[in-house]
Amino acid sequence: MDWEYWSQRLVEEELVENGGYNEYGTSGVGGRAAGVNGNGPTKLVDPLEDPVPGVGTYEDFNTIDWVREKSKDRDRHREITSKSRQSTVALLHSVSDAFSGWLLMLLVGLMSGALAGGIDISAHWLTDMKEGVCLNGFWFNHEHCCWTSNETTFQERDRCPQWKSWAELITGATEGPFAYIVNYLMYIVWALLFSFLAVTLVRAFAPYACGSGIPEIKTILSGFIIRGYLGKWTLIIKTITLVLAVSSGLSLGKEGPLVHVACCCANILCHLFTKYRKNEAKRREVLSAAAAVGVSVAFGAPIGGVLFSLEEVSYYFPLKTLWRSFFAALVAAFTLRSINPFGNSRLVLFYVEFHAPWHLLELAPFILLGIFGGLWGALFIRANIAWCRRRKSTRLGHYPIIEVLVVAGFTALLSYPNSYTRMSGAELISELFNDCSLLDSSQLCGYQQPSNISETGVGNTLADRPAGPGLYTALWQLALALVFKMMITVVTFGMKVPSGLFIPSMAVGAIAGRLLGVGMEQLAYYNHDWIIFKGWCSPGADCITPGLYAMVGAAACLGGVTRMTVSLVVIMFELTGGLEYIVPLMAATMTSKWVADAFGREGIYEAHIRLNGYPFLEPKEEFEHNSLAVDVMRPRRADPALAVLTQEGMTVGEVESLVESTHYSGFPVVVSQESQRLVGFVLRRDLLISIDNARQRQEGVVSASQVVFTEHAPSQAPDAPPPLRLRGILDLSPFTVTDHTPMDITVDIFRKLGLRQCLVTHNGRLLGIITKKDILKHMAQIANRDPDSILFN
Amino acid sequence: MDWEYWSQRLVEEELVENGGYNEYGTSGVGGRAAGVNGNGPTKLVDPLEDPVPGVGTYEDFNTIDWVREKSKDRDRHREITSKSRQSTVALLHSVSDAFSGWLLMLLVGLMSGALAGGIDISAHWLTDMKEGVCLNGFWFNHEHCCWTSNETTFQERDRCPQWKSWAELITGATEGPFAYIVNYLMYIVWALLFSFLAVTLVRAFAPYACGSGIPEIKTILSGFIIRGYLGKWTLIIKTITLVLAVSSGLSLGKEGPLVHVACCCANILCHLFTKYRKNEAKRREVLSAAAAVGVSVAFGAPIGGVLFSLEEVSYYFPLKTLWRSFFAALVAAFTLRSINPFGNSRLVLFYVEFHAPWHLLELAPFILLGIFGGLWGALFIRANIAWCRRRKSTRLGHYPIIEVLVVAGFTALLSYPNSYTRMSGAELISELFNDCSLLDSSQLCGYQQPSNISETGVGNTLADRPAGPGLYTALWQLALALVFKMMITVVTFGMKVPSGLFIPSMAVGAIAGRLLGVGMEQLAYYNHDWIIFKGWCSPGADCITPGLYAMVGAAACLGGVTRMTVSLVVIMFELTGGLEYIVPLMAATMTSKWVADAFGREGIYEAHIRLNGYPFLEPKEEFEHNSLAVDVMRPRRADPALAVLTQEGMTVGEVESLVESTHYSGFPVVVSQESQRLVGFVLRRDLLISIDNARQRQEGVVSASQVVFTEHAPSQAPDAPPPLRLRGILDLSPFTVTDHTPMDITVDIFRKLGLRQCLVTHNGRLLGIITKKDILKHMAQIANRDPDSILFN
Repeated sequence: MDWEYWSQRLVEEELVENGGYNEYGTSGVGGRAAGVNGNGPTKLVDPLEDPVPGVGTYEDFNTIDWVREKSKDRDRHREITSKSRQSTVALLHSVSDAFSGWLLMLLVGLMSGALAGGIDISAHWLTDMKEGVCLNGFWFNHEHCCWTSNETTFQERDRCPQWKSWAELITGATEGPFAYIVNYLMYIVWALLFSFLAVTLVRAFAPYACGSGIPEIKTILSGFIIRGYLGKWTLIIKTITLVLAVSSGLSLGKEGPLVHVACCCANILCHLFTKYRKNEAKRREVLSAAAAVGVSVAFGAPIGGVLFSLEEVSYYFPLKTLWRSFFAALVAAFTLRSINPFGNSRLVLFYVEFHAPWHLLELAPFILLGIFGGLWGALFIRANIAWCRRRKSTRLGHYPIIEVLVVAGFTALLSYPNSYTRMSGAELISELFNDCSLLDSSQLCGYQQPSNISETGVGNTLADRPAGPGLYTALWQLALALVFKMMITVVTFGMKVPSGLFIPSMAVGAIAGRLLGVGMEQLAYYNHDWIIFKGWCSPGADCITPGLYAMVGAAACLGGVTRMTVSLVVIMFELTGGLEYIVPLMAATMTSKWVADAFGREGIYEAHIRLNGYPFLEPKEEFEHNSLAVDVMRPRRADPALAVLTQEGMTVGEVESLVESTHYSGFPVVVSQESQRLVGFVLRRDLLISIDNARQRQEGVVSASQVVFTEHAPSQAPDAPPPLRLRGILDLSPFTVTDHTPMDITVDIFRKLGLRQCLVTHNGRLLGIITKKDILKHMAQIANRDPDSILFN
Repeated sequence: MDWEYWSQRLVEEELVENGGYNEYGTSGVGGRAAGVNGNGPTKLVDPLEDPVPGVGTYEDFNTIDWVREKSKDRDRHREITSKSRQSTVALLHSVSDAFSGWLLMLLVGLMSGALAGGIDISAHWLTDMKEGVCLNGFWFNHEHCCWTSNETTFQERDRCPQWKSWAELITGATEGPFAYIVNYLMYIVWALLFSFLAVTLVRAFAPYACGSGIPEIKTILSGFIIRGYLGKWTLIIKTITLVLAVSSGLSLGKEGPLVHVACCCANILCHLFTKYRKNEAKRREVLSAAAAVGVSVAFGAPIGGVLFSLEEVSYYFPLKTLWRSFFAALVAAFTLRSINPFGNSRLVLFYVEFHAPWHLLELAPFILLGIFGGLWGALFIRANIAWCRRRKSTRLGHYPIIEVLVVAGFTALLSYPNSYTRMSGAELISELFNDCSLLDSSQLCGYQQPSNISETGVGNTLADRPAGPGLYTALWQLALALVFKMMITVVTFGMKVPSGLFIPSMAVGAIAGRLLGVGMEQLAYYNHDWIIFKGWCSPGADCITPGLYAMVGAAACLGGVTRMTVSLVVIMFELTGGLEYIVPLMAATMTSKWVADAFGREGIYEAHIRLNGYPFLEPKEEFEHNSLAVDVMRPRRADPALAVLTQEGMTVGEVESLVESTHYSGFPVVVSQESQRLVGFVLRRDLLISIDNARQRQEGVVSASQVVFTEHAPSQAPDAPPPLRLRGILDLSPFTVTDHTPMDITVDIFRKLGLRQCLVTHNGRLLGIITKKDILKHMAQIANRDPDSILFN
């Protein structure tokens, strides 16, 4: 998220973009707009009158009112149902309306699956481009290029004659230090080129396309409006720059941004259906499902995706959304599979199959991995937030392009010599998860040949074996890769390119896990007479699977960073398909969460939400303080009295001057100034639009006209100007709590009902108002943070 | 659920049982109790005063107030946290409090897993007992008895010499019609004996133990109190009678009741922890997790169990409960696995492994199965509800024991001759799901030997083959079994024995699916030149898997009856472990749900909830009518004014007479009768207890004493009796809505916050009250049902 860009928008108000959600925003492009969108009739307007355009819509960077939105949708549904009895066309309309949700889900699934497939293929191609080019056609990636080759074994197929490394192509040399240096340089050049393209495209066309997008999507789903964040420009630029960023070799993944891409698809497709275009709450249901789709295509784990959306991203997740998310996630996964980007007909990103079960005693190292994951998660969040804060507050933030180029160049420079950092994050994880079979030629499987130990391990060709020199080299390289990945990821996440955290976090954990796994294996092999190994790890038995340790480590680290639990375990479960490994995964993720929580309750997404000051009311954390509503409400004791309107007796001029002298986004309407008995609540935006509209269209409305909120206009002097009747925009059912209501209950009400504001009464008299922002400020104050860090309405 | 028993309780009030939730009820045993439990301090009571015992607790058959309960728990938590800084003991207490939830989950998982294992083993043994006995010891079941036998093939091992059928034991004859008749008779005798024992035990000790328990658990989780429903007697009797009922051969399953058993375990274990013993809301979180545990042990599907609890059973399911349910479900599944009741080290009830993938064109028969499942579901619900209603309204309901005996005898009589009805439901489903391998000796795999067709199908020994005579016999038997199961299940579900619906519904679907699958297979075999089979179903290919059709059919029928979708698919997914089959399952369950919903929105559990008149506010269905709060609230226009208390000026006598002249469970307190400005709300129960308590303990409180709800007592005449100050029991933050609030919003508030009542105001003045029962009555009225069918408070 571009902090600088945002504060500019707030302070200078220069970048308010054209159109609105209705035209799915074009952030960064276009000039100033009035902000009045031609939305249709709303509940608040008397259906007999012509609705005033713009009433019932929201301004950018404001919070929606869930209750009103859902009520609006129910009204719309009622209208369609009652009309459906009148004619066949209306009946068809009603049926198509009922199925439009499913159709939309189908489209979201298809589009996201296709896009994810395209991203996978392009990223694969561009990544290979850094190393060489295919003579049959530059658009083939390495593997594809060698498909037609006659070489049959995997090793040799990798070196087919059609594929030329850059050194070979430029100098003709295939071996030797000179060729190595040429390849090294080309690698760095491509990395710099890709990252430069990515960051400039983001800067030029869609500043919202940077980062993982999940913190912002969480905020949007909780009811905040960020126009253009899920628009078509963001989608196009994010898709392109994601491919570039991943290919540049930076320590980032494409899994988080895929959630953003899927949400953009959903938001754009929403515009095909009136039901979703015009209703912010309904649209958010679709976006929740899209988040599930994103994870589903990222990992090939539809159930895990749904649980991810439920556990991590969504705010309001009714059962209907559960069904639909599941459907969309499945469609997307199968679309992706038919595109078959991984080339193995597998649905999942990392297909794993382990041969040996695990032993109960292995829980100890698994829990150790959980502790490592938790510590790394807590450390990463602190370091990353500190670095991002530094970027915001110092001159560093003014040179995002240079920053990206420096980090990319540095990453390329350091990662090329080490084969484990040179390969992409997903490949690395895949290799680490792999269970060594006898014929495996990978360095990680460089065990001593079993010929000399076959006497003991008859029949079991997968038995634990002593490590050979290949494996020792691999371990050293892995240890270096671990340190490098841990450092570089901290500065990479938060740069102005699309960047996901899943793959780098998992890579860190997988390396640590694999190291521990191999260590355990060797320990068991050389000391199988120790008590702890007795009985289950005799010589010749295949008792320890280092790949499983890598998987558990990956889950632990990802869990420490994001604080996911169930969804993480289910994603991992879907990768292996074996219930057997749920217990190790569960033990590690739970430990990781507990350890990380001990250092700070926030996951990386919550930390970034707070860093950016979004108005997000965390649904997971309990409000623990025992303050009352009266302590939080405005006006405070020393403040001037609450600005209220009376239901009759005020003139248009008085109302206008009251509105202009304050900055509140809404005003309570009371019976009279003396009684302070509450009648309703009117929004500033609706009030201004209605008065403007009336002045332009309704004859005789002048500043001296009375503003009337009652049902029947009071009798007036015959020569008085006609009154302006505004009951239509008055919300007659504002939420109220009493001044004695404990804040924990009030916060619960805000969260569960998705309120924007709530009025406070004492013995039936209006006393004050509590907004979502007041609550967030109060919570910040309790946590000894700066209450002014909450930026938006 | 015993309707008769319940209405008796309500009318004659003779069976109000001893103790309460606190002593985990002993339903049916014990006499009348005062209903005052020694619960601890509550928020409503001034912490400085000694709390009055009983204030803040609930009576039987009442609805809890979620908001207060949760607020109470937060208070408790705050107190512990603030104390923890003072001493080490308090710190330890705070830590143990934080981990008590996890510990409780561990215990629930262990206990439920162990009980489920015990039930499985006993039911297996008793089922075999109907056919014969083991000479090595009568406590061995058939399989266990023959383990030590020398016969090695499965066929012959089944006929080991140690296992004697009843005919062999009594008459010495092993073959021939006489032996058959003896075995037949013994089968019926045992079935009658088991069912008689089951129904008499239920009648005598725990009337709540009958049925599946899921409708009642749904109601309890939504906030209703049924004392003893989850008590120790229910647990003991349900466990024993469940084994008996399953063994008697009745068309019922143990899966639904296992949810009830797990919830009983959880409720009983809650009493070990103050946090859960004293708080109805916290306890319900544990019960939600227990429901997940129940399904987890029933099918060996922990993730499916969690989703079942989320989708089908739970009302309030925060993320914390998600994590804990998952943990408990895993613990239970692994406990069950280590007991290993299925004898195959598999976690799952039906382990399935299919060899062939499915083809897109097969979606047509899968959707056909979905339509069948939906129709069957709708039909079953109608027929079963009609039968249960008849049982209630006619003399049939007066003879539950005879009813059970007749149905059990009839079932045994008809099911013995047909081997597919003679075997238990789970065995039948297992056999139907099975994919035929070449060596399979089961009748369902009675295909013609492949020797004569081997020329075409070289190498593929699993190719589709023409049906042989064995298979044709099996198909006839299956068709008869289908008709029989469909009829008998309608009268079985709802009898006074523990009875689950999962297995019978799945059996119906599995039979239908297998029939269709074999039909498709033969169609494809004989007509592989048809266009629809071309390309994918050539001769010698293994293109159609009848077992997969059976699985899809089982899911469709279960979906039609219960209207589960995601959880059902996930349970089935966990059985096979293959993402490949999710699409057929999804297609079938979705079709099934849509078809069944077209005939009626309610699943079987909701239908039973309505039949029994439980106050359950369905969270899934939208409130569609456009009435306002003023249309639903009491008093109606013609009614006398609302009974209110004033905050001062009323005497104890006046209050008592007001309370006695009405039956309301709570009274609003207003500033004065004239202003009708709302101060708070006081519960009838709390008011009566406090007045009783004050009269007994507080000196000078007489009928003429003033009742004061204000903070400071008003000045009184010096000779007046001391006032009774009741601000402590006054709820100062009652929920209010305005009279103009649409009912859809009001219903939403009730659902989401779990309210019991809500006050209605107009322009700040109190107008009326809406209770949960008012809403349910209003909804019944809209749906043209009898509003008085809602029975409880």
